[in-house]
Amino acid sequence: MIVRGAPAIGVTAAYGVVLAARKAYQKSTREWQKHIHHDLETLASARPTAVNLAWALTRMRRCFSEIQGDPVPRLLEEATAIHQEDIAANQHMGELGAALIDPNSAVLTHCNAGALATGGYGTALGVIRTAYRTGKITRVFADETRPWLQGARLTAWELHQEGIPVSLLADGASAYLLSQKKVSWVIVGADRITANGDVANKIGTLATALAARHFNARFMVVAPISTIDMTLESGQSIPIEQRNPDEILHFRQQSIAPQGVEAWNPVFDITPAGLVDVLVTERGVVPQPNRDRLQALFTHTM
Amino acid sequence: MIVRGAPAIGVTAAYGVVLAARKAYQKSTREWQKHIHHDLETLASARPTAVNLAWALTRMRRCFSEIQGDPVPRLLEEATAIHQEDIAANQHMGELGAALIDPNSAVLTHCNAGALATGGYGTALGVIRTAYRTGKITRVFADETRPWLQGARLTAWELHQEGIPVSLLADGASAYLLSQKKVSWVIVGADRITANGDVANKIGTLATALAARHFNARFMVVAPISTIDMTLESGQSIPIEQRNPDEILHFRQQSIAPQGVEAWNPVFDITPAGLVDVLVTERGVVPQPNRDRLQALFTHTM
Repeated sequence: MIVRGAPAIGVTAAYGVVLAARKAYQKSTREWQKHIHHDLETLASARPTAVNLAWALTRMRRCFSEIQGDPVPRLLEEATAIHQEDIAANQHMGELGAALIDPNSAVLTHCNAGALATGGYGTALGVIRTAYRTGKITRVFADETRPWLQGARLTAWELHQEGIPVSLLADGASAYLLSQKKVSWVIVGADRITANGDVANKIGTLATALAARHFNARFMVVAPISTIDMTLESGQSIPIEQRNPDEILHFRQQSIAPQGVEAWNPVFDITPAGLVDVLVTERGVVPQPNRDRLQALFTHTM
Repeated sequence: MIVRGAPAIGVTAAYGVVLAARKAYQKSTREWQKHIHHDLETLASARPTAVNLAWALTRMRRCFSEIQGDPVPRLLEEATAIHQEDIAANQHMGELGAALIDPNSAVLTHCNAGALATGGYGTALGVIRTAYRTGKITRVFADETRPWLQGARLTAWELHQEGIPVSLLADGASAYLLSQKKVSWVIVGADRITANGDVANKIGTLATALAARHFNARFMVVAPISTIDMTLESGQSIPIEQRNPDEILHFRQQSIAPQGVEAWNPVFDITPAGLVDVLVTERGVVPQPNRDRLQALFTHTM
């Protein structure tokens, strides 16, 4: 949990491969590809839900066959490219997403899908940054996002740094916020999107999607295509990370629940494609995502 | 916030009137009804959302006209009656609600509607206690209930004391819990129910009701008829208490959000009657509450 946020996990894994290659090459200039194997496995198993991790590792591994001699320069070039492409993708998604929002809107976001979750700029927060700059957004409501409080600690910080008006709220308050018609869009990132358009994202996202649909707000997912996993048919197949119950039972080493009580602590949930009004990727905007529309992102130039 | 939970607020207010009457009678044996006025106003304005407060004060005040001499004995008798009736009502609601639940069920509750929120036994937790004892319930999932953590601090404690298996979860996780079909009922208390059946309850309740409806679980509200306010047509008229933003921005005096960030902190929300599958009162069970069915609670013997 030093690095969190699906795109940031991918970028960091790519740089991790560079470090692992340096170490392996020091061990053996001839057999570094054998020696790097264990570190690649460790990287791959660091987090189960974000598919960007596997995506970045696959892309780095693809370079191996063309490398002769020291692998570091070529791998560093590739990792840097992944990083730069991620930032460029975020900026492009920012423009595409902002274009969908009416002037003077307030929006709700959940967790942190900002510069601190990506290579820079952000997915959901990239849209929000661009939309604020162009007068589309006047206020951002940010769920605090228990148990890690990414909304309070990261999203509120990023927005406040840029002077974007932000109001924090308890996660349980977002349905009421939507019922009061205080926001017109919910805008979130994603950790994995399956072929049918189902979206894995931080626990609590599903509740905002249900409330948005019920109270006629719109629900936007912003994610680079590296987040889309066409090998999984639906969200039911996404492995959902269960984290330590202590994240619920303690707060900064202080107990907040009685001794002996259990906790259920899934850290992602699945929002069914049917609740997603629009998916924004760097290759274009996908209304009501489904298998055909996602497939088209990979086969057509958009 | 020393006393919280709508029925407990009512019971406490009733005893508060006894204390105020003692003080007023010490000031003036003849004009105590004049001297008590200010304390009654203070009690009435302590909390805006729970209607049990006004209900208890009205009932206590109704005794004033019949009192000659020292008001304390008669008022203490009435306050004790309110308290005892509340416990009896909870026990009866426990039986009525438990009868609706299939054996070997798991349920979700939000906030604390237990012995610590009532005169004793509890509304939602009264149903859960009875249902556990009769083999209907095998596990309770309890939302932690930010920002005050009533679920973690109170509900988990009450259930754990009685050996009822309880799993705490972040509020944002309850929609995912329901999507995974892990619970068949959501069971909550209420702070005020309007004539059309809309329910004010702790912030976050609405999100559980939306998720229950979407994923085919059932939504039960358990509340004594003193919680029903037939003078208000719908939930839109219920005053929703906004509390100090510091409850969101700080945790036990430690800052958990950047300096200068705002917070939006409504502490109740409104669940529309259409999302309520059943209301359990001490006068009977009301399926799909509406104006006619609530009116019948007050006019027919059930």
